[in-house]
Amino acid sequence: MPRIAYFGPRGTFTEQAAAAFDAHAELVPLPTIPLAVAAVRAGEADLACVPVENSVEGAVSATMDTLAGDAPVVAVAERVLPVRFSVLVRPGATFADVQTVASHPHALAQVQQWLGKHMANVTQLASTSTAAAAVGVLAGEFDAAVTAPVAAAHYPLAELATEVADESDAVTRFLVLSRPGALPEPTGADRTSVFVVVSHRPGELAAMLTELAMRGINVSRIESRPLRNRFGEYRFYLDFDGHIAEQRVGDALAALHRRSQRVRFLGSYPKADGVASTVTDGTGDTDYRESAAWLAALRRGEDA
Amino acid sequence: MPRIAYFGPRGTFTEQAAAAFDAHAELVPLPTIPLAVAAVRAGEADLACVPVENSVEGAVSATMDTLAGDAPVVAVAERVLPVRFSVLVRPGATFADVQTVASHPHALAQVQQWLGKHMANVTQLASTSTAAAAVGVLAGEFDAAVTAPVAAAHYPLAELATEVADESDAVTRFLVLSRPGALPEPTGADRTSVFVVVSHRPGELAAMLTELAMRGINVSRIESRPLRNRFGEYRFYLDFDGHIAEQRVGDALAALHRRSQRVRFLGSYPKADGVASTVTDGTGDTDYRESAAWLAALRRGEDA
Repeated sequence: MPRIAYFGPRGTFTEQAAAAFDAHAELVPLPTIPLAVAAVRAGEADLACVPVENSVEGAVSATMDTLAGDAPVVAVAERVLPVRFSVLVRPGATFADVQTVASHPHALAQVQQWLGKHMANVTQLASTSTAAAAVGVLAGEFDAAVTAPVAAAHYPLAELATEVADESDAVTRFLVLSRPGALPEPTGADRTSVFVVVSHRPGELAAMLTELAMRGINVSRIESRPLRNRFGEYRFYLDFDGHIAEQRVGDALAALHRRSQRVRFLGSYPKADGVASTVTDGTGDTDYRESAAWLAALRRGEDA
Repeated sequence: MPRIAYFGPRGTFTEQAAAAFDAHAELVPLPTIPLAVAAVRAGEADLACVPVENSVEGAVSATMDTLAGDAPVVAVAERVLPVRFSVLVRPGATFADVQTVASHPHALAQVQQWLGKHMANVTQLASTSTAAAAVGVLAGEFDAAVTAPVAAAHYPLAELATEVADESDAVTRFLVLSRPGALPEPTGADRTSVFVVVSHRPGELAAMLTELAMRGINVSRIESRPLRNRFGEYRFYLDFDGHIAEQRVGDALAALHRRSQRVRFLGSYPKADGVASTVTDGTGDTDYRESAAWLAALRRGEDA
């Protein structure tokens, strides 16, 4: 039974993502993202589950900075959760009983339309997490909490509403991290994540992305993070389609390594949406094998 | 006296940034970033001050999404604050009196080394903002608060420590936003911000950045934001050197407009660091004027 450290507390979207990865795992909530990742680095946990994109509870830049520093960890899986909230109240309470509603400020921001329609005259209060709002309702501090659906399983509260969301298609993405070791097998629908440190000159970034584009590799996410302590360098976080075991991906990574100050590999893992990568003409593993054989023959003087 | 709405509450880094922009402005704290920007859109405030990068109180992706939606607003200035905290206690208290210390979780994460050294056995508690921690100290809920320096001006608390930071060079960046109107004058050390929506195909992003690179324009920040409701499109937030009044910048923006689904101009404004943009050979306004005159003469049949 693996031990998964996650960015807590209990009853949050991150716990829900960790449980979605392995329903039988031992889940260990830790108070910050750096501490969850540190538990894996130190061998105190087998895996860590942390938000990486569009998080309800915030702190996504904390994930990026944590992955960039210290001993390497790699993603072995991702999980994507729809951002749909439950509204929890004390058992027996109705809409008429709700005078105060609490949640993490990011969560409140994502249900403003719903609150305007269903709780127009209710006072909104901020809590440190969606789960902390549920605890506050239990303690009688607030009348209602906007929470992750999983919170209903942890606290003896009633669901006044479920599937609450202003934008029905918003999602939060989580990574499951481990110490470096055997990579997940390629599935044909994989994603690779890296950090790249490049010189801060016009054209360096365009050149780097062209290395991916010319091999038909689709970039699904890019984000620059300043390196304040090293003037003139910039760090980029990149997600792109494909697995490091594929020739075109390996070839592109080697090119980034030659071109940049530093590349940190953050893992190749199956995409949550399962949509297979497209491989454009001339960039498949067979194309690479044939061109390598052709080049080798030329170099041996056997062909021309 | 301008009225500046800002992401509150009072006593946070964002208030400090707003005051740094205009010490005589009327500062109006609002509970969320969307509400602060909405106040400018509705004409209830002249300007809004919101965090845009590496924020201590989080919610930076909220800024990006708010700028992308609804009626346009443009940045007219940026302010950059060092991430250095004050530790506030009730007057007369010393290190020996501190058993609990509170702050926003992002702020706590940035002072872990300092706390480990100076408050090793002190319990750390999360608050909804750095200012809320100060209020909690005043109310006797906690013994110490890790806050923005400006909090000391709002609350009758004593500074146990100032200039507290694990990384001495970390900064948070803020934008000052207004309704569209006359642009700030070019200074030679300007930044331009845009959102661009591009088709989600390999090479589109590389091509877009090459439009900037070939005109010698340095990209200082890039971040992709998913457009979940429009499959196959991606939105990028870009900061680059230069002012829209410059020929090379205007030329690049027009190229992005031709190439992409949509470009939203988010302003050209003086850079906080005042470092002049470099203009590489053949990309200055004079070069543009000369080449336009040469082309016009050819088209008139006057030259060859």
